[in-house]
Amino acid sequence: MYFGGDYNPEQWPEDVWLEDVRLMREAKVNLATVGVFSWARLEPSEGVYDFGWLDRVMDLLHDNDIQVNLATPTASPPPWFGLSHPDAMPVRADGTRLTHGSRDTYCVNAPAYRVASRRIATALAERYGAHPATAMWHVHNEYGTTCHCDHCATAFRAWLRDRHKSLDALNDAWTTAFWSQHYSAWEQIMPPRTTQYRSNPAHLLDYRRFCSDALLAHYREQRDILRVHGRQPVTTNYVMAGWTPLDHWKWSAEVDLVGIDHYTDEPGDGGLAQVAFASDLARSWARGKPWLLMEQGVAAMYVPDGTLPLEPGEHTRRSLEYVARGATGVLHFQWRASQGGAEQWHQGMVPHAGADSRVFREIADLGRTLSALPPAERAEAEVAILWDDEAAWALRNPALPVTGLDFRASVEQTHRVLWQQGLATDFVHPSHDISRYRAVLMPSLYLISDEAVANLTAYVEGGGTLIVSYFSGVADPDTRVRLGGYPGALRDLLGVRVEEFRPLTGPVALSDGTVGTFWSETVQLTGATAAVTYVGGGPAVTRHQVGAGSAWYVSTQLDASGLANVLAQAGV
Amino acid sequence: MYFGGDYNPEQWPEDVWLEDVRLMREAKVNLATVGVFSWARLEPSEGVYDFGWLDRVMDLLHDNDIQVNLATPTASPPPWFGLSHPDAMPVRADGTRLTHGSRDTYCVNAPAYRVASRRIATALAERYGAHPATAMWHVHNEYGTTCHCDHCATAFRAWLRDRHKSLDALNDAWTTAFWSQHYSAWEQIMPPRTTQYRSNPAHLLDYRRFCSDALLAHYREQRDILRVHGRQPVTTNYVMAGWTPLDHWKWSAEVDLVGIDHYTDEPGDGGLAQVAFASDLARSWARGKPWLLMEQGVAAMYVPDGTLPLEPGEHTRRSLEYVARGATGVLHFQWRASQGGAEQWHQGMVPHAGADSRVFREIADLGRTLSALPPAERAEAEVAILWDDEAAWALRNPALPVTGLDFRASVEQTHRVLWQQGLATDFVHPSHDISRYRAVLMPSLYLISDEAVANLTAYVEGGGTLIVSYFSGVADPDTRVRLGGYPGALRDLLGVRVEEFRPLTGPVALSDGTVGTFWSETVQLTGATAAVTYVGGGPAVTRHQVGAGSAWYVSTQLDASGLANVLAQAGV
Amino acid sequence: MYFGGDYNPEQWPEDVWLEDVRLMREAKVNLATVGVFSWARLEPSEGVYDFGWLDRVMDLLHDNDIQVNLATPTASPPPWFGLSHPDAMPVRADGTRLTHGSRDTYCVNAPAYRVASRRIATALAERYGAHPATAMWHVHNEYGTTCHCDHCATAFRAWLRDRHKSLDALNDAWTTAFWSQHYSAWEQIMPPRTTQYRSNPAHLLDYRRFCSDALLAHYREQRDILRVHGRQPVTTNYVMAGWTPLDHWKWSAEVDLVGIDHYTDEPGDGGLAQVAFASDLARSWARGKPWLLMEQGVAAMYVPDGTLPLEPGEHTRRSLEYVARGATGVLHFQWRASQGGAEQWHQGMVPHAGADSRVFREIADLGRTLSALPPAERAEAEVAILWDDEAAWALRNPALPVTGLDFRASVEQTHRVLWQQGLATDFVHPSHDISRYRAVLMPSLYLISDEAVANLTAYVEGGGTLIVSYFSGVADPDTRVRLGGYPGALRDLLGVRVEEFRPLTGPVALSDGTVGTFWSETVQLTGATAAVTYVGGGPAVTRHQVGAGSAWYVSTQLDASGLANVLAQAGV
Repeated sequence: MYFGGDYNPEQWPEDVWLEDVRLMREAKVNLATVGVFSWARLEPSEGVYDFGWLDRVMDLLHDNDIQVNLATPTASPPPWFGLSHPDAMPVRADGTRLTHGSRDTYCVNAPAYRVASRRIATALAERYGAHPATAMWHVHNEYGTTCHCDHCATAFRAWLRDRHKSLDALNDAWTTAFWSQHYSAWEQIMPPRTTQYRSNPAHLLDYRRFCSDALLAHYREQRDILRVHGRQPVTTNYVMAGWTPLDHWKWSAEVDLVGIDHYTDEPGDGGLAQVAFASDLARSWARGKPWLLMEQGVAAMYVPDGTLPLEPGEHTRRSLEYVARGATGVLHFQWRASQGGAEQWHQGMVPHAGADSRVFREIADLGRTLSALPPAERAEAEVAILWDDEAAWALRNPALPVTGLDFRASVEQTHRVLWQQGLATDFVHPSHDISRYRAVLMPSLYLISDEAVANLTAYVEGGGTLIVSYFSGVADPDTRVRLGGYPGALRDLLGVRVEEFRPLTGPVALSDGTVGTFWSETVQLTGATAAVTYVGGGPAVTRHQVGAGSAWYVSTQLDASGLANVLAQAGV
Repeated sequence: MYFGGDYNPEQWPEDVWLEDVRLMREAKVNLATVGVFSWARLEPSEGVYDFGWLDRVMDLLHDNDIQVNLATPTASPPPWFGLSHPDAMPVRADGTRLTHGSRDTYCVNAPAYRVASRRIATALAERYGAHPATAMWHVHNEYGTTCHCDHCATAFRAWLRDRHKSLDALNDAWTTAFWSQHYSAWEQIMPPRTTQYRSNPAHLLDYRRFCSDALLAHYREQRDILRVHGRQPVTTNYVMAGWTPLDHWKWSAEVDLVGIDHYTDEPGDGGLAQVAFASDLARSWARGKPWLLMEQGVAAMYVPDGTLPLEPGEHTRRSLEYVARGATGVLHFQWRASQGGAEQWHQGMVPHAGADSRVFREIADLGRTLSALPPAERAEAEVAILWDDEAAWALRNPALPVTGLDFRASVEQTHRVLWQQGLATDFVHPSHDISRYRAVLMPSLYLISDEAVANLTAYVEGGGTLIVSYFSGVADPDTRVRLGGYPGALRDLLGVRVEEFRPLTGPVALSDGTVGTFWSETVQLTGATAAVTYVGGGPAVTRHQVGAGSAWYVSTQLDASGLANVLAQAGV
Repeated sequence: MYFGGDYNPEQWPEDVWLEDVRLMREAKVNLATVGVFSWARLEPSEGVYDFGWLDRVMDLLHDNDIQVNLATPTASPPPWFGLSHPDAMPVRADGTRLTHGSRDTYCVNAPAYRVASRRIATALAERYGAHPATAMWHVHNEYGTTCHCDHCATAFRAWLRDRHKSLDALNDAWTTAFWSQHYSAWEQIMPPRTTQYRSNPAHLLDYRRFCSDALLAHYREQRDILRVHGRQPVTTNYVMAGWTPLDHWKWSAEVDLVGIDHYTDEPGDGGLAQVAFASDLARSWARGKPWLLMEQGVAAMYVPDGTLPLEPGEHTRRSLEYVARGATGVLHFQWRASQGGAEQWHQGMVPHAGADSRVFREIADLGRTLSALPPAERAEAEVAILWDDEAAWALRNPALPVTGLDFRASVEQTHRVLWQQGLATDFVHPSHDISRYRAVLMPSLYLISDEAVANLTAYVEGGGTLIVSYFSGVADPDTRVRLGGYPGALRDLLGVRVEEFRPLTGPVALSDGTVGTFWSETVQLTGATAAVTYVGGGPAVTRHQVGAGSAWYVSTQLDASGLANVLAQAGV
């Protein structure tokens, strides 16, 4: 069981380091993430290294039985990098080229950045691959920067050739016949830069896919260098926020363990539900490999307006919940709260007030508790929710029937109802083997492939219970609408056909006494029966017996009790 | 009577075309707008044409007795165009040059764009000018793109020389003495690009006038080419939305019929009022020539958050209302809902669900109804409202006494009250012959010329009833305030003088039991008498007998019943 | 006692000038600010002057006993300037270079702009330094434009070398160890341009300091030129708004009298409180030198949505209040309301309606009243509030514990309570001699130097009463958090220690029957005693006896009655 956090000794004089390790021992810290933001210190000018201070840190930690999760520092290039390689600074959609002065100023497709990344990763691997403190490699930090420069354009075209094979196929997949967007040469294709009016949704979606893959290529390059020089597991830390452009299933196949950075923004039970959601996602992405809470706030919530403190004991309860859901460790950002810099008001395990503080005492108690904890025993989940980052991205497109469609929010809301009912839940991709689950829920999964539909159909035929909610399965993987009636690819399986969506501007009463909001549909029964109806209208929730199982369709946004009623009816 | 819509066969395989014409016949479609977004297909690379597919479409439609409203595709240049001519891509006020990837990416003043526009228009005219299906030419689409590039700067200066003749006159008209903006050479004048603080309102207004004229020059160039090769009427489609930078009176003199694109955003009666407003504007702009509803949504409203469906039958009621107000046809965007692209969720006459659908059945019923409809008989309007796009633009200036002054909104609100009272209403320009109207209303018409004032005065003297509302006539055509007391040029006619505007932060009670909102004034009577007063204050509405008629002044924002009371008092 | 306003005769034909001076005499106007926006008229092309019209204006005013506050026109460079020197146009953080077309389009660090500024200032000084009408020099107008160009980068680096001496010291002061921002050469440092994520708060703060100093250097350059040719006092006009990047203590040492431009936005007593606040600030900044209300609105409030009129008499009451608080004159923007230009709807002493108007009559009455007024007698203030622009800027940093922390708002709210209680109040800098005040209040003063802490401590020890409110003294002058517990540098003096801030999302009840909002803290008593407690919690307001005085700490946002209670307890 790991316990610890990001440790940035370069922010402090060396005499503070001695207090640090003393306090770490007191708090049973056994893993420190080091070097995340150290590039400027390790390579003060291009190709010139200064490892002395890091040698001393590594030795000091090792001497105190603290292992190191050693980072490659490529998420924060030093000022000299951007000045030597202005073409490697990221460019916004409108052509604005960003400058250094914060963090994450890089274009992952710029050759100069790739060279610099490999060079510093190689230097670290050679020097610390055999160091006894090195327990894990932490590549980069919170992958997520996107760019629209010419390097990206070149890389995007290569990626598109690989995906679509021919320009004809791309024109077809993107429906470029609309608005005269037909491409007659690969060179005409650009990243989705600022244009006069709405962009093509297939263009946007493929660019998100490409960005995920381009970042992953950067990760793999470093991982492979690190593996040459060390035998430690290699990983990176996912930001658990909606904006991250990573395909988590694809990425999780490339890391040795799944690491997540998770910052809650609700107090009390709401925060615990967020912990359960993030943990279940991480555990599911890991698919049997270990997973680790790589960062969390220290006794604080991160709300839009800033930081709010947790009540005493709340941080401990949340940390134990991560562990109960399978985390192999609980880390924090960061060990010691910074005096300056842009995150100086980000709480630390050692706060500004110092170790003589309630916060540090709770942290130290937590460390001791975790060090004595037996391994978590966990019942297998019998219920699963479908998760697909591509489907989530597709709902970010600017021209859907209404704004407000949000895959992640729908999934999280669904998960919370299951969590409130005490149901252990996994997440699965629509193409995964789901036969072992008693029930599978599919909230607003916009895009679906034919293969995934076949998989879901086989699952139901084999006795499974599938509960699909509105705006699922209406588009193909190129975001083209599936014709003939909604919900497209799932019509036969669900035994319904919908001609018209009827988004709501207020609540609508349902026959089970609950209300639907946001969305409704005129549902025609083509095999299914109505389980819940709109008061004064047609079917709201339907049930279709297929083989040994049943497929349910929910055509409106249910509240928690409405969804609980459906789950009860479905015997979940 | 035309019935039909935009038909984009290039989005579909040819076997779908056969179903299309079969369904069109079923729905009595007799006019299809073709080619609006086909440039990339018609001219796949610069100067290389592919007309084969369009030949087949034209023949197929002709064989099925469906006429074609054939578009020049210049609103959506293909990707190759912007890459060959980056200087012809539009530039925002802040200097951002846009790229292809949507539609409408062109600068109408760029020589390369004009050359390319003439070339494709000529090619289409030569090939289809004599085709028996060609019934009408549809130049471009929804003119409205503005740009701030150096080509525009050059063209703007030429336009200014023509308008103001001398630099002294321009400096005077623009009051450049304020803020040290005096121009000592024509070359110093730029489009209104991003600057440190507020722009000069006369500069902004002249730029809007120039943009309208520059777009109109582009239209006329194509129209004249088309007339060389065909005898069909030539037109374009106006967007009926507030942002359009077109001077509709000027444009309507150059088109053979007025075409409007109209998307409602209110359900029920509100939507019908919007239909009446748009129809009355179009009919008035046409000044006796025919007018056509060139685009409308299919059984849907377009609200800020997306699309909402209309109730069954509502689309039919609205379509019949356009016809009752003089439309010579009812078209839609678009025939078949797209599978992909940025408007894939824009409803179609054939929806995603296909022809076996309530929507298509309502469309087909509507087509049959219209085909059997006798020509509309329409009473002449006895009431008119003043419409002047220049006055509307002037209220977009950033430095008025308060924000929220909106010419179009004031006009639309006034029109709705007349519509609710069953009064047939025309729109007229302040300089038009208005002698035949029983009453003329003038809601918040900021700018007015001396000639227009003389016209209005003669109208009242001759027995007319003029009802002017607040913030009318206070500025001259160069947006200079008319001095000596508000409402400037109309003081004598109205018999009032106002020293101070008193914008309201809440409602104020009026003597007739209604309330005023938004605006009030301290009105001095200089010949007029008070018809309605502010409770506890001075005159709110005044009446001035002038010659055989009367001139009314409304110094606050009345609600519907307040305006109805005034109309009743005025005997309208 | 001065009375008058900005006079822009270049906007009007010369026959209007004769009416102007007649009306000025009628209104007892004795000071006209001339030439603020005249650069384009005075120097119509580079190096070519036209002083004829200004000669006539100066003579005419002098002949009518009206003195002139003669402006250098450098705030509004003419169009030719930006076209000849595009590198002298300001650049936004994102790299957008602005163009002429408004006002204030200059980069104060551009050599070409400095040359042009000195040239026009010299020409004016030579021509009018000995003119009998010239009573005062008005350098520039409302200093405040910031820029991010390469000229600024160069000047910023020189400024930083001067402040920090060595790059090591700068890296330390800015905590560049965080996020890999270590600078290894001065040339790597840029203005805070648009970057990927949050900027470094010390970087932002030093840039604000630099901007104030760079603008001040521009001012001093002109002042020194003017002093060579004339003996009149030299000044400029501060905008009394939160965004102004001027260090007012520093600037006020360089002007011969303090001039402020003040526009209120509240009616009635709120507006009077705003007048008192602005006047007390100006008088305090002047530190015994005279101060002048250089601009105010004419009988109008300037609210976010535009302009609202004051009630009759209200303008007079406010003007007299400025005088009662020490103003040596009351000026307005502007004499005659403009017909055109971006501020055509800005009210004038002579409004659009002309001199036959309620507004002009009130202005003329006010002029006569002021001309007969004896000099203001004013009691010395016994209470002071700390004011420090640097501390205000530091609270604009983007990464504080919560958004909404606002130094100016806290100070103004505190001032209003004292004003409501009739307490005469000064403002002082934390390093000033404050020994003569009975009480000193310190609302949310984030940054504090060790020297200032020593000053405050000596004040309390000597018998003073210091009332400190939350989030004061927590950072050092480089925005680094002072460690060991909040409020950092003030812990010993206040006898309290705070480990955790607890920002509030709703109100919290206090033991004195009032409520705290926005912010709370867990306060440990380390010498102080609780004066007010949180209901059900710990100390909210504390009192610490130190030497002959007492130091109070207020850990939440009190309302007016809560603060009044504390003042009463403290015997203020």
